[in-house]
Amino acid sequence: MAISSQKSITTPKGFRAAAGTCGIKRSGKPDLALIVADKPCTGAGVFTTNTVPSPSVITAKQHLRSGTAQAIVCSSGNANASTGRKGTENTLRICQQVARQAMIHSDDPGLVLPSSTGTIGRQLPITKISRGIAVLASELSRGPVVDAAVARAIMTTDLVPKQAYRSLRLGAGSGKQVHLAGVCKGSGMIAPNMATMLAFITTDANISRQMLASVLRDAVSVSFNRISVDQHTSPSDSVQILASGGAGNPRIAKRGRDFDRFKDALLDLCHDLAYQIVCDGEGATKVFCVQVLRAKNEKDADRIASAVVNSPLVKTAVHGGDPNWGRIVTAAGYSGAALVPEKMSLRVGPCSKGRPTGGTKLTGHVCVLRRGQPVELDAAAQRRLKQVMAKKEVAFTLDLGLGKGETRWLGCDLSKAYVTINADYTT
Amino acid sequence: MAISSQKSITTPKGFRAAAGTCGIKRSGKPDLALIVADKPCTGAGVFTTNTVPSPSVITAKQHLRSGTAQAIVCSSGNANASTGRKGTENTLRICQQVARQAMIHSDDPGLVLPSSTGTIGRQLPITKISRGIAVLASELSRGPVVDAAVARAIMTTDLVPKQAYRSLRLGAGSGKQVHLAGVCKGSGMIAPNMATMLAFITTDANISRQMLASVLRDAVSVSFNRISVDQHTSPSDSVQILASGGAGNPRIAKRGRDFDRFKDALLDLCHDLAYQIVCDGEGATKVFCVQVLRAKNEKDADRIASAVVNSPLVKTAVHGGDPNWGRIVTAAGYSGAALVPEKMSLRVGPCSKGRPTGGTKLTGHVCVLRRGQPVELDAAAQRRLKQVMAKKEVAFTLDLGLGKGETRWLGCDLSKAYVTINADYTT
Repeated sequence: MAISSQKSITTPKGFRAAAGTCGIKRSGKPDLALIVADKPCTGAGVFTTNTVPSPSVITAKQHLRSGTAQAIVCSSGNANASTGRKGTENTLRICQQVARQAMIHSDDPGLVLPSSTGTIGRQLPITKISRGIAVLASELSRGPVVDAAVARAIMTTDLVPKQAYRSLRLGAGSGKQVHLAGVCKGSGMIAPNMATMLAFITTDANISRQMLASVLRDAVSVSFNRISVDQHTSPSDSVQILASGGAGNPRIAKRGRDFDRFKDALLDLCHDLAYQIVCDGEGATKVFCVQVLRAKNEKDADRIASAVVNSPLVKTAVHGGDPNWGRIVTAAGYSGAALVPEKMSLRVGPCSKGRPTGGTKLTGHVCVLRRGQPVELDAAAQRRLKQVMAKKEVAFTLDLGLGKGETRWLGCDLSKAYVTINADYTT
Repeated sequence: MAISSQKSITTPKGFRAAAGTCGIKRSGKPDLALIVADKPCTGAGVFTTNTVPSPSVITAKQHLRSGTAQAIVCSSGNANASTGRKGTENTLRICQQVARQAMIHSDDPGLVLPSSTGTIGRQLPITKISRGIAVLASELSRGPVVDAAVARAIMTTDLVPKQAYRSLRLGAGSGKQVHLAGVCKGSGMIAPNMATMLAFITTDANISRQMLASVLRDAVSVSFNRISVDQHTSPSDSVQILASGGAGNPRIAKRGRDFDRFKDALLDLCHDLAYQIVCDGEGATKVFCVQVLRAKNEKDADRIASAVVNSPLVKTAVHGGDPNWGRIVTAAGYSGAALVPEKMSLRVGPCSKGRPTGGTKLTGHVCVLRRGQPVELDAAAQRRLKQVMAKKEVAFTLDLGLGKGETRWLGCDLSKAYVTINADYTT
C-alpha cells in the first residue's frame, strides 16, 4: 500500500484537499474527497462514451463547457448511475454545497466538478454526503498526508491507492518550476472508450483553455484509452485536470517547445497512472503488453491490440503462464482489422513497467510465428518461452507487415480472484 | 453424459458414419469422425469470419462452392490452424484419402469437407490420422451407437456430447417422412460471428442447392450466431449440412409451404444444438438469456444483447446469483446501439431451455428499471428477484422503447472453473 511519491495532488501551487469517511461504504473506509483550488482554474476533462452516463458525468461535462473550474468532489461506494431525475438533483445539491462551503472568491456551483464511483442503480445517501462535505470543507489543507487520504477516498475495489507526480521547467532561461500531480482509481469495469476510470490531475502550469483540453485529450488517448481489465466501459469514467497558473511560467497559448514539454510530462504522468490501474486490476496477478507493429494504420493496430487485451482466452493463458500463442493470433483474426496471415509474425518476450524490453530489435524475445508459419522451437527456445511467460510481466509483439500503424496496450490476467470479487459485489 | 436422442446423424436416409481414436489426443479419447453419404449430396456450409481461418476451413469452403459434397471428416485435439503451407498440404492429403477409401461412386477429394478442432499452431500428426481414416473407412455403419461415437469424437473441452434430431412430413397428402439430425461440439472459444463451433447436420430432404444454402444461413444467424461463451471467434468454426434426397419428398426448389416447414425444423434443431453448447460452456454452471425488445432496429438489438452476453461483469453477477442489474444497463450503454436512457426498462425473470417464461407479458418477471428510473422494490419483490437470480437459468429483458428491433441471445456464467480450464490448456 505504498504511495508512489511523497509529492502529489496538492504539490502544484494553488490547491488544497481533504478526504474522509462520510458513511457511503458499509466497510467504514474513506469515501469522500475534495480538491479545491484557491481561485478559478483553467479546466478540462475527458469523459466516458457510455450512452447511459451518470448524472455526475453529465453535470461535470456541462460545468466544464466554460473551460473554468475550481473544485473537484468525488464520492465512492455509490456510482449515482441509472438513478434518473433524483440522481441529477442530488448531484446539483452537492455542487451547490461545495461552492458555498469550500470555495473562496466565488460560490458558483458551475465551477464544481462532481464524480461518483461504486454500485450502479442506487440513490446517493445525500444526507451523509452533505454532512461529510461540511466537515471536509473545514479541513482543506496541503501535503503528503492529505494527498494519500484523497487517493484512498476515491477507491472502490482497488487494493492500492494510485498517485503520480512529475515536474519540469518551462519558459526562457532556467525557466519556472512547473508541477503536475495526479490521483486515480480503477480496478474493475475498466475498458478503454474515451476515458477509463476516475483520474484527477492538478498542475500549476499557466496554460490556455484550448491548449489544456488538447493536451489532455492526446495524453488520455494513448494512456488510459489503451488499458483494459474487463472491457466494461463504466458510466462514470472521467479524467479531469485543473491548471492554476501558480507556477508563473509564460502562458502556453499555442503549440511550440513549452507545449511539447508540458505534453510529454502529462503523457508520462498518465502512463504511470494507467500502468498502476492495470497492475491493480481486479484479481490481477500479471500484466501484459500487446505491441502491434506495421498494421495497415493506427486504427487497425488499436483494433488488434484491443481484441487481444480483452480476450478471456489470452488473459487466462497469461494467468497460467501458458505459451498458447494461437489465441493471440486468432484474437487478431476476429478484431476486424485488415491482415494477411502470410505476413503476420508474433514475438513473445520480457516486459518491464508496461514496456517491452530489448530495444527496437526486441532482443531476448522468442519468435513463435514468422510470416504465417509456426516456428519450430528448439529445446533452448522452448525453455526461454516458458521462462518469459512465467514472469510477472510479458510482452506480445504482433508484426502485421502491412503498413505503418503502431500501438501498445496494457492488460492484466484473468484469475479466479476476479470471479470471486465480481460474483458477489452488491450483496 | 446422456445422449439427447436415440436418433441422430445416421437416421436420415443415405448416411453412414464411424468414429474412433487415432491418437491425436494424449488422453486417448476419441478424436476422429467420418460421416459419409452413399452418393454425392446437396451440401451447404457457414464458416468462421475470423481472418486467419484454418486450412481446413479454407479447403471446406472451396469444396462447397460446387454445392455438392459426399463426406465429412473431422479430427479433434489439434485445430490445424496457424499451420501455414504444411497445414494446407495435410488437409488435402486427408481429403484424398477419405475420397479414395471411404466414398462410393466417386473418389473426388473435392467432395470431402474437412474440419479440425483443438490446439492452434501445431502441425497435424498426419501419419496417425491416415492410419485412423483407413480403419474408420472399413467400419462405416448406421445406428445410435455409431452416432454417439461421432458426437464424442469431435469433442475437445466439451463435457457432454451434443446431438439433436427432428422429423417432419413434406409433400402433398400425408407426405413423405423427412429426417434432420445434427451433432456439434463447442465449449470454449465460442463467439457469434457467422458460425461458432463445429456442427454437422444430415438430412434426407430433397432440396436444391440454393434453397439449402439459404435456409442454413437463416437458421445459423438466429441460433449459433446468438450464443457466446467467451467472445473469442475460433479459426475453425463451421456448420455443414448434407442433404441426401433419400426421403423422396417433392424437391424443394423455391420458397413456399415445404420450404417454410423445413426451415422451421432446421431452425429448431439448430436452436437445440446451440442451447446445448451454452449449457456446456467451459466452466458454465448457469445459462442466461438476453432478450432485447423495441430497439431501433434488429442490428442494434443484436449489438446490445452481444455486449451484455459478453460482459465479464454480467457473467460473474449471474454466477454469484447477484442482482447487480446496473452492469446490464451499462453494457447496453457501451454497445454502440442507439438508446435513450429515459426510455429504457429492464426486467429480470425465470427462463427455461433458453427462453424467458411467462409469455409475452413476462408474468413473474421483476421490473428493476422503468423508463430510466430505478424501481423501489418492496421486500416481496426483492425476495422474488433473489430467487430468480439463484436459478440455473435466468432471463434479462431490456425494452428500449425506440423501434421494432428484437433479438434473443444466450450466454453462460463466468466461473473459477473457466479460469482453471483455460490457464493450462496446451501444456
